[in-house]
Amino acid sequence: TEQFSFSDHSHRRFNPLTRSWVLCSPHRAKRPWLGQVEEASVEKRPEYDPECYLCPGNKRATGAQNDNYASTYVFPNDYAAVHAEQPDCLSSTIAQVAAGNASSELFQVESTCGQCKVVCFSPRHDLTLPELELDAICEIVRTWQHIYTQLSADPTIQYVQIFENKGSMMGCSNPHPHGQVWALSEVPSEPRKEIESFKAFKAKSTSGGSDDTHSCLLCNYVKAEEENAAASETANRIIVQNNSFVALVPFWAVWPFETMIAAKSHVEDVTKLSAEQIRDLAAVLKELTCRYDNIFQCSFPYSMGLHQSPIAGHSDADYCHFHMHFYPPLLRSATVRKFLVGFEMMAEPQRDLTAEQAASRLRAQSTTHYKKQKL
Amino acid sequence: TEQFSFSDHSHRRFNPLTRSWVLCSPHRAKRPWLGQVEEASVEKRPEYDPECYLCPGNKRATGAQNDNYASTYVFPNDYAAVHAEQPDCLSSTIAQVAAGNASSELFQVESTCGQCKVVCFSPRHDLTLPELELDAICEIVRTWQHIYTQLSADPTIQYVQIFENKGSMMGCSNPHPHGQVWALSEVPSEPRKEIESFKAFKAKSTSGGSDDTHSCLLCNYVKAEEENAAASETANRIIVQNNSFVALVPFWAVWPFETMIAAKSHVEDVTKLSAEQIRDLAAVLKELTCRYDNIFQCSFPYSMGLHQSPIAGHSDADYCHFHMHFYPPLLRSATVRKFLVGFEMMAEPQRDLTAEQAASRLRAQSTTHYKKQKL
Ligand SMILES: O=P(O)(O)O[C@H]1O[C@H](CO)[C@@H](O)[C@H](O)[C@H]1O
Ligand SMILES: O=P(O)(O)O[C@H]1O[C@H](CO)[C@@H](O)[C@H](O)[C@H]1O
Repeated sequence: TEQFSFSDHSHRRFNPLTRSWVLCSPHRAKRPWLGQVEEASVEKRPEYDPECYLCPGNKRATGAQNDNYASTYVFPNDYAAVHAEQPDCLSSTIAQVAAGNASSELFQVESTCGQCKVVCFSPRHDLTLPELELDAICEIVRTWQHIYTQLSADPTIQYVQIFENKGSMMGCSNPHPHGQVWALSEVPSEPRKEIESFKAFKAKSTSGGSDDTHSCLLCNYVKAEEENAAASETANRIIVQNNSFVALVPFWAVWPFETMIAAKSHVEDVTKLSAEQIRDLAAVLKELTCRYDNIFQCSFPYSMGLHQSPIAGHSDADYCHFHMHFYPPLLRSATVRKFLVGFEMMAEPQRDLTAEQAASRLRAQSTTHYKKQKL
Repeated sequence: TEQFSFSDHSHRRFNPLTRSWVLCSPHRAKRPWLGQVEEASVEKRPEYDPECYLCPGNKRATGAQNDNYASTYVFPNDYAAVHAEQPDCLSSTIAQVAAGNASSELFQVESTCGQCKVVCFSPRHDLTLPELELDAICEIVRTWQHIYTQLSADPTIQYVQIFENKGSMMGCSNPHPHGQVWALSEVPSEPRKEIESFKAFKAKSTSGGSDDTHSCLLCNYVKAEEENAAASETANRIIVQNNSFVALVPFWAVWPFETMIAAKSHVEDVTKLSAEQIRDLAAVLKELTCRYDNIFQCSFPYSMGLHQSPIAGHSDADYCHFHMHFYPPLLRSATVRKFLVGFEMMAEPQRDLTAEQAASRLRAQSTTHYKKQKL
């Protein structure tokens, strides 16, 4: 009789961080694609673009002028989603939108404040993460540290979300390599879910009498994946690792080439990284994004973000384990993406290739960027 | 001093069905758009396309031939995400992907089976929902009933997810109007979340001593929105309603023009709809999708889906209240969409215009389809 096989048969996997399931249908990768094909991203950009509102010295839409910056450059988002100050949302105003039901549990609303910043990765208009020197990537990590520390001093801010949208396919409206920071007066939904999972895992582990180092969900997961990789090639989801960091395709990945970068030791937030850890993180970032670009020989689009503790003093600050998520949409080629639509929106995320297949594909890529390879 | 205003200031709203928050930044709609612009969808299609694998009498990729159908047409998905039968997923196979950690809570996996079907809405290659006659839409609803009843007879199936991806922007690979059905051996994540919310709401309400009709989350929500609409124009989120159904922009909408269609009385699943309710649902579907098309004078893309009870006999079958979700991506024009990317993926969904602004925009549209309007 036929045996169950993860690369042939449908199954669901569980994400213990968000406590949700993903449907895997590996055989489905074989179906022909007749749907939308994206425009290939423009490959050759100038080092400096006089029309770019992120390049050094240029004017932005709102009239402000950028410094003639030489490494990273941080400025307030001119179209911030949240503002540092605004009037309070009182029950009388809530009644405006919920009429007679202002107090009902069906019409819950709260005012929210914060700060939004833009982080240019370097003055160069044409260099994405994998093309930057290691030192320049270290500088980006130090800039994240600096922003986090600075925002921690603002008593109204609870969470600092650092992220990058790369490529027009991911809603990025300017090709000059940059990330964003949205700092908010509440812990937003996704980190909130993760915190609850970290807490529940710790509560369960410590009630069993284990010590502290064994009670962190991600410390445990990273250790298990190192063991898996050593034990069996078919269970190896690790792409790259060094002393301090590992990049892997999580067992429960949703996007075709989704990855997670996690600290090997228990680090709560980016400010806690030592000089050596910063360098190790930069090295993993460079190699992972280089392998991404090499899969389809294109500038690989993604949304990437840091997950870490709410700012110091928050009662949940101790539970978190610093990590980063990469969610790239491409599936078959530089122009054919995965759509997470109908079934995925209404019912459950669905993926075609397995996490192990994606990991092995990523491991097979060269660590020399395709633009630098002699053809 | 300035007053808080829902159309000027940032706030978060709570979705009691999925128990998650959405960040609303209404002032942000003012920012200029320099990002990706989609191709406008082709407007003029033939009534019959000899190349279309969904048109009557044509051959599909796998060689099967469609009937010469005259109303709706249902056939098995040639590239199904799940199959009716496959080998069992044993712990020995789990160990293949999780190496030594097969039993750990960090590596949870289960086998999944089911059936996937395609539902052509009509033989006409060129007619979308708003362009079909009311009778033809009634026939689609009756087809959903028939499929649900048929699948209920399969003891391995627990949930029937009926949905439509419309437009290439939503990953639809064939413009011939059609929907899909994915029926699964487990209740998937999104309906599972909703069931938990229905249950919790009922438990809370009945412990307060109220009677049964007051203990359903959606019965209560629909009633509250009818009251809100009557009480105040600024709190009116209803687009269209009749005796049995209402279409509204939910208070907690994420997508710019997201809507929900809900039964006014407590109906568990689509098979329970009477002839009058079927007609009323068809009328609401026709008017809502017509208003959608009129916003930007284009065939409005969306993913749409039915949420209802798991199949009869399931212990949670009684809690659910039949409703449909529409998630359309367009924001500013026929070619500029909202991207739910970086911040939204890492932290929390974010929207620009408020639910009330979207509702008022939809109410302002004509109920005559733009293609039929004299210009
Ligand atoms: O089945 P289709 O139409 O080929 O595919 C489409 O709908 C599916 C169900 O929502 C998605 O998984 C696919 O990514 C999408 O392209
Ligand atoms: O701020 P940007 O780059 O203009 O906008 C982009 O990122 C934001 C944060 O993820 C999203 O809300 C927008 O939809 C997206 O287009």
